[in-house]
Amino acid sequence: MKVITLHIEPVQDNLLQKAHLRLDSLTKPQGSLGRLEDFAQKLVLLTGYEIPSPLTKKVIFTFAGDHGVVDEDVSLFPKEVTVQMVYNFLKGGAAINVLSRHIGADEVVIDIGVDYDFSDEKGLLSRKVLRGTANMRRGPAMTRKEAELCIDTGIELALEYADKGYSIFGTGEMGIGNTTPSSAIAAVITGAAVHDVTGKGTGITDEALTHKIKVIEDSIAINKPDPTDAIDILSKVGGTEIGGIAGLILGAASKKIPVVIDGFISTAGALIAYTIEPLVKDYMFAAHNSVEKGHTAMLEKMGLKPILDLNMRLGEGTGAALAMFIIEAGLKIYREMATFDEAGVSRELE
Amino acid sequence: MKVITLHIEPVQDNLLQKAHLRLDSLTKPQGSLGRLEDFAQKLVLLTGYEIPSPLTKKVIFTFAGDHGVVDEDVSLFPKEVTVQMVYNFLKGGAAINVLSRHIGADEVVIDIGVDYDFSDEKGLLSRKVLRGTANMRRGPAMTRKEAELCIDTGIELALEYADKGYSIFGTGEMGIGNTTPSSAIAAVITGAAVHDVTGKGTGITDEALTHKIKVIEDSIAINKPDPTDAIDILSKVGGTEIGGIAGLILGAASKKIPVVIDGFISTAGALIAYTIEPLVKDYMFAAHNSVEKGHTAMLEKMGLKPILDLNMRLGEGTGAALAMFIIEAGLKIYREMATFDEAGVSRELE
Repeated sequence: MKVITLHIEPVQDNLLQKAHLRLDSLTKPQGSLGRLEDFAQKLVLLTGYEIPSPLTKKVIFTFAGDHGVVDEDVSLFPKEVTVQMVYNFLKGGAAINVLSRHIGADEVVIDIGVDYDFSDEKGLLSRKVLRGTANMRRGPAMTRKEAELCIDTGIELALEYADKGYSIFGTGEMGIGNTTPSSAIAAVITGAAVHDVTGKGTGITDEALTHKIKVIEDSIAINKPDPTDAIDILSKVGGTEIGGIAGLILGAASKKIPVVIDGFISTAGALIAYTIEPLVKDYMFAAHNSVEKGHTAMLEKMGLKPILDLNMRLGEGTGAALAMFIIEAGLKIYREMATFDEAGVSRELE
Repeated sequence: MKVITLHIEPVQDNLLQKAHLRLDSLTKPQGSLGRLEDFAQKLVLLTGYEIPSPLTKKVIFTFAGDHGVVDEDVSLFPKEVTVQMVYNFLKGGAAINVLSRHIGADEVVIDIGVDYDFSDEKGLLSRKVLRGTANMRRGPAMTRKEAELCIDTGIELALEYADKGYSIFGTGEMGIGNTTPSSAIAAVITGAAVHDVTGKGTGITDEALTHKIKVIEDSIAINKPDPTDAIDILSKVGGTEIGGIAGLILGAASKKIPVVIDGFISTAGALIAYTIEPLVKDYMFAAHNSVEKGHTAMLEKMGLKPILDLNMRLGEGTGAALAMFIIEAGLKIYREMATFDEAGVSRELE
């Protein structure tokens, strides 16, 4: 398994003082750009550069996978929508395409576990580990080996795109039914009750939500995932796209590349990565506060604070795209603003 | 006074249903893009177009003015900083320059009331109404006629930039001491106690804050502004840049152009415009939740909800720039996403 050979270092806290000094030398009242300043500082620490390079090459990874648990009627949409949406991504008509174009990022779509044989589709990265997970209410979603392969797939992508010169990654996903495994992961890792971390996904009724909670409780009861073993959790109650995202984060951290975590499902992937290696949290930015119940509990577990709060709950990487643009704004402030000395602006009165 | 001849129409609520239908036809669960969808819908209603044009020409207006009340030691920075920062804007080194470039907006700097005679500076719009207001603790900040001229200046700019083909405006300002008149306006119009709408501005101490509150209370007591007469308030306890912003908003609304309100001081300008014509609120977007105390009370008075919350308190138009990009994202979603039919994606299960 590739994660064993990865080397992830703690971020360089020794640069904190220098980053502060630069921020306070810029022509603005101290701290007046709030979290934009925090983002710049975090980029300094995680890249290890006193002045990080511009984020010129940006990329959003949208991992697609299917879920056997949809047989339990947990979603509002039919399973075929995963495939249909992959084609929509490839044609540029989905929300993530619009937002990637808006921020000037490349959008990469990965088939990691869709229950469909795509032919050689232009623009689709075929990294299929399996054709849809098994129904986790009846047994493990996948084997331990398959779960490891999902993570390895994400790691490989991170290393590949690091080599291509990309300087910031965003995570995203598509998979009908995937809030169900995400809630299961949230419950197992945070220790919260299932009903406290399970929401309405694409918009199911109250009655369907009660059913969904039961399905998740049953899935955890039958599989008994070990809360300290992320691979065990991923294989038993996870999903391929969630594993891919976890791997992407681990790979990004090993390359000192910032990674923007989208919403609920991406955060489940982040929790898997965090359980494997807690140091990854200093390489992650939480894009937004998803409407999906339980998102906050997961972010708090990792000590991450969302950047945006726009009532979004779509996934695909849509929140990550918008947040990436705000993070980039923070870095531009840090890199491009004039200092008091350069601009001949008086500092505070003594 | 130009405001008398302006015609501001209510927005076209009759388009609400059509905007909804289009949003729900796009390939995403209904409502899953949250406030991005609200922004698109608001643009439909205010422009009156079922499919509004792209926001290709964007502009941020940064109005600069000085304040006699700085003689009362209400600010952390010396008054000269207003002039120095205007030069910084013209050279492109300030935060608003960085963020305007980041979002692809033009940045316009207006001298509406700086206490300095600029020579013919390249890039500076000279629309000076006066050279710094008078100390409002001793009497009116300016005459009623001057207050009207400030508003007219903003209106003229709005009409001029509408003619130039700009499709969205952002407000911003620079003026050492200008949180003081803004808090005074907030107290008079919202009816809140001065200490509930007065914050630390650029970062003064607790002791200095107590003094600042006293200065504002004295200014209101001596001038007795009429809470129902916006021009009276602006002239007695306002500022030139605040008047310019109020005029810009009125002019924008008359041209059906959306206007993004930056932070605390811009919102004081918005309150002046709103007191003159409450219909303007449907043409405004509140950019962000400023750290400055009292901002929320002002936004609530107008029924506006901030888009971002990033602990910012710089002004200049910095929050407006970032929020403008998010609003634009909402419109692009609305304009560019494929529909279920176009993409061949199945709708919800029956």
